[in-house]
Amino acid sequence: MKRILVDMDGVLADVYHRFKELYRLETGKIISDDEITGKTEFEAFPNVYNWVTAPGFFRNLPLIEGSRQGLERLNHAYHVVVVSMATEYPHCLTDKQLWLEEHFPFLSWKQVVLCGDKSLIKGDLMIDDHLKNLDYFDGETLMFSQPHNVKTTGHRHRRVHSWKEIEDLLLPPR
Amino acid sequence: MKRILVDMDGVLADVYHRFKELYRLETGKIISDDEITGKTEFEAFPNVYNWVTAPGFFRNLPLIEGSRQGLERLNHAYHVVVVSMATEYPHCLTDKQLWLEEHFPFLSWKQVVLCGDKSLIKGDLMIDDHLKNLDYFDGETLMFSQPHNVKTTGHRHRRVHSWKEIEDLLLPPR
Repeated sequence: MKRILVDMDGVLADVYHRFKELYRLETGKIISDDEITGKTEFEAFPNVYNWVTAPGFFRNLPLIEGSRQGLERLNHAYHVVVVSMATEYPHCLTDKQLWLEEHFPFLSWKQVVLCGDKSLIKGDLMIDDHLKNLDYFDGETLMFSQPHNVKTTGHRHRRVHSWKEIEDLLLPPR
Repeated sequence: MKRILVDMDGVLADVYHRFKELYRLETGKIISDDEITGKTEFEAFPNVYNWVTAPGFFRNLPLIEGSRQGLERLNHAYHVVVVSMATEYPHCLTDKQLWLEEHFPFLSWKQVVLCGDKSLIKGDLMIDDHLKNLDYFDGETLMFSQPHNVKTTGHRHRRVHSWKEIEDLLLPPR
């Protein structure tokens, strides 16, 4: 069975939604999409390191639209493994696993990898929003659109904008 | 550079030392090596599930003798990756990463994988004490002796009894 490696932040978890909320809370200003397009998270949100290293940040993130249903459908047709860069921030590890168990109860703990280098993981297809992961993967790749990668061109990765698009690409029509 | 996947519990962390301490604390009895030889951890210590799921258990484990120096020496000669079965018990995840950072500060967070299925991880050699990991690895294998595997025979894995023996096998004489 074909194995699909699915990223968490920016593919299952809507980190940008929370970043914008925290930015507004801290500055009183609403940041526009234009202001963050084509910038890294660290360029767009100067306080992002403090936010993501705080215990609890990854425990309460909202879902990317359609991710719960989309992943459940993929899980029937493929060997799905959720793979997340996580060991850099020790306090996010337990938060991430508990968040996955809450929102994706159909996944087993055997289908989760929390690591610091995704090139160590075997798979046939990777769905991710970061070039640092996609570029070092030797299988097929889908780049999930997020503000930081909107202007990225010149890479082999097929861009997808939504879970609807992932389902249309990888699953038979319903 | 050859990649070595190194297990945590039973190879770096001396879980049996702590199991015996907890057994003595709870029952007032000292358990003998004969009583646990050839048994799984769950057979040898009926309360082991409660112990390992308690937050903090994996944060304070003692080291296997020689593991700190041995791993540091391997780390100069190989691409070392610590790979631990961990997602089954969410509360152990943060504890394990913090424990590694405390005792093996020469390792980067990029060299750590916390997962639920080691067959997903690419490597050339695996050092582990559990057949459930060693049997599904497609590279070379070293089985680290622990009470639960002492009677294991009929597998291809080369048995090692100590970090001294690992160093002698994998590193040039000093």
